[in-house]
Amino acid sequence: MAPTTGKVICAGLGPGDPDLMSLRAARAIGEARHVAYFRKAGRAGQARRIVEGMLNPSATEYPMEYPVTTELPFDSPDYTQALAHFYDDWADRLATLAATDDILVLCEGDPFFYGSFMHLHSRLQGRVPVEVIPGITGMTGCWNATGTPITWGDDVLTVLMGTLPEEDLVRHMEQADALVVMKTGRNLPRVRRALERTGRLDTAWLVERGTMPGQRVARLSEVQDHDCPYFAIVLVHGHGRRPEIAE
Amino acid sequence: MAPTTGKVICAGLGPGDPDLMSLRAARAIGEARHVAYFRKAGRAGQARRIVEGMLNPSATEYPMEYPVTTELPFDSPDYTQALAHFYDDWADRLATLAATDDILVLCEGDPFFYGSFMHLHSRLQGRVPVEVIPGITGMTGCWNATGTPITWGDDVLTVLMGTLPEEDLVRHMEQADALVVMKTGRNLPRVRRALERTGRLDTAWLVERGTMPGQRVARLSEVQDHDCPYFAIVLVHGHGRRPEIAE
Repeated sequence: MAPTTGKVICAGLGPGDPDLMSLRAARAIGEARHVAYFRKAGRAGQARRIVEGMLNPSATEYPMEYPVTTELPFDSPDYTQALAHFYDDWADRLATLAATDDILVLCEGDPFFYGSFMHLHSRLQGRVPVEVIPGITGMTGCWNATGTPITWGDDVLTVLMGTLPEEDLVRHMEQADALVVMKTGRNLPRVRRALERTGRLDTAWLVERGTMPGQRVARLSEVQDHDCPYFAIVLVHGHGRRPEIAE
Repeated sequence: MAPTTGKVICAGLGPGDPDLMSLRAARAIGEARHVAYFRKAGRAGQARRIVEGMLNPSATEYPMEYPVTTELPFDSPDYTQALAHFYDDWADRLATLAATDDILVLCEGDPFFYGSFMHLHSRLQGRVPVEVIPGITGMTGCWNATGTPITWGDDVLTVLMGTLPEEDLVRHMEQADALVVMKTGRNLPRVRRALERTGRLDTAWLVERGTMPGQRVARLSEVQDHDCPYFAIVLVHGHGRRPEIAE
């Protein structure tokens, strides 16, 4: 590793309510002199919005603007290549900054749970010290918003992406007690079909903006297909699987 | 609901490092006049240990001591009945206290994720107002301790209890990309066999006391069967399932 005096610190911001970030993350945010965060071009960015009013006024900000939108097909070579260049470029910039100073990267939820930071994390290995501050995951904020335990006893919980093929969704939904489905949005009709085929639709909830202003908790059966943003999460609660005699 | 002037607040304490609890939980802990927490008889209790030095010196403490140890068979009528009475009794006491004042219940991790608090939560419904403060789950602390993302891309994550029968463990392990296995301890030999049968043993980690003093991160293949406490967590990281064209 090249000699550096700084490091890259990634702070998990939690599910959205600033009051739900950790003491360590809040301290790092207040002290940071350099603050980077992902956002779509032309948008304020959810990560930046969460820390509004918490940054040191003299901090320098580095908005890392995605070169493409999620409207491009995920599996197209253009998408993959543009993103790779984007992450390469920012990893270089962060490494350069960390040669002389700490730089804080903001990340919604927990950085190691489906976080975009991992694309920088892998590129920074062996170049500069990297420190990660865990956060409450977005799904934890969402199941808390329902006011009901997501799991208890020996429940099996499975976390699925709505982008998966319907047969994969069905296979997993048949086996798990509790379910979390992320990346919904345009995938909602397929998620709904899979839930219906496995008899889980009636007990499924859609949670949007969990723990944030404008939070919405609705029975999925009462939500229209077009009325679901990509970041909304579908939940099915466990019922407390009873322990079995297992030897 | 009976008229009350107080409420029961359950604060998720996070994975163990006090610095990883939320700003809201820390504030609630510092302000609380009545603080209850579960512990085994004769033990300090992990929840109480996490908040050491944070409680208001004038706070009254209510250790809720489990009437039985985990050594009793989970499925015995004696165990079930003793626990039910214990939860009934404490729900009554908390409801009585909440008639006149707020009472804070401490809970490791996130209260709605395999938390003991749910047994009080269900008994308090309709009797007193209940508020839950989310926390970073223990498993999040553990995967952060490994310094590697647990999931990315379209990975499927399944959370399993080591108490499940071996065939159930195998069936789930065959299908998920990333795995979390809780309630290990005496169940470790069965968990290990299931991982071996599904070709996952070589990439499995055991994490003990994640984020806490004495944290231990070891390859499961290098851990002896007798050398695993009940609260240690087994992890298998995802590899970033590539999105598929799904219609």
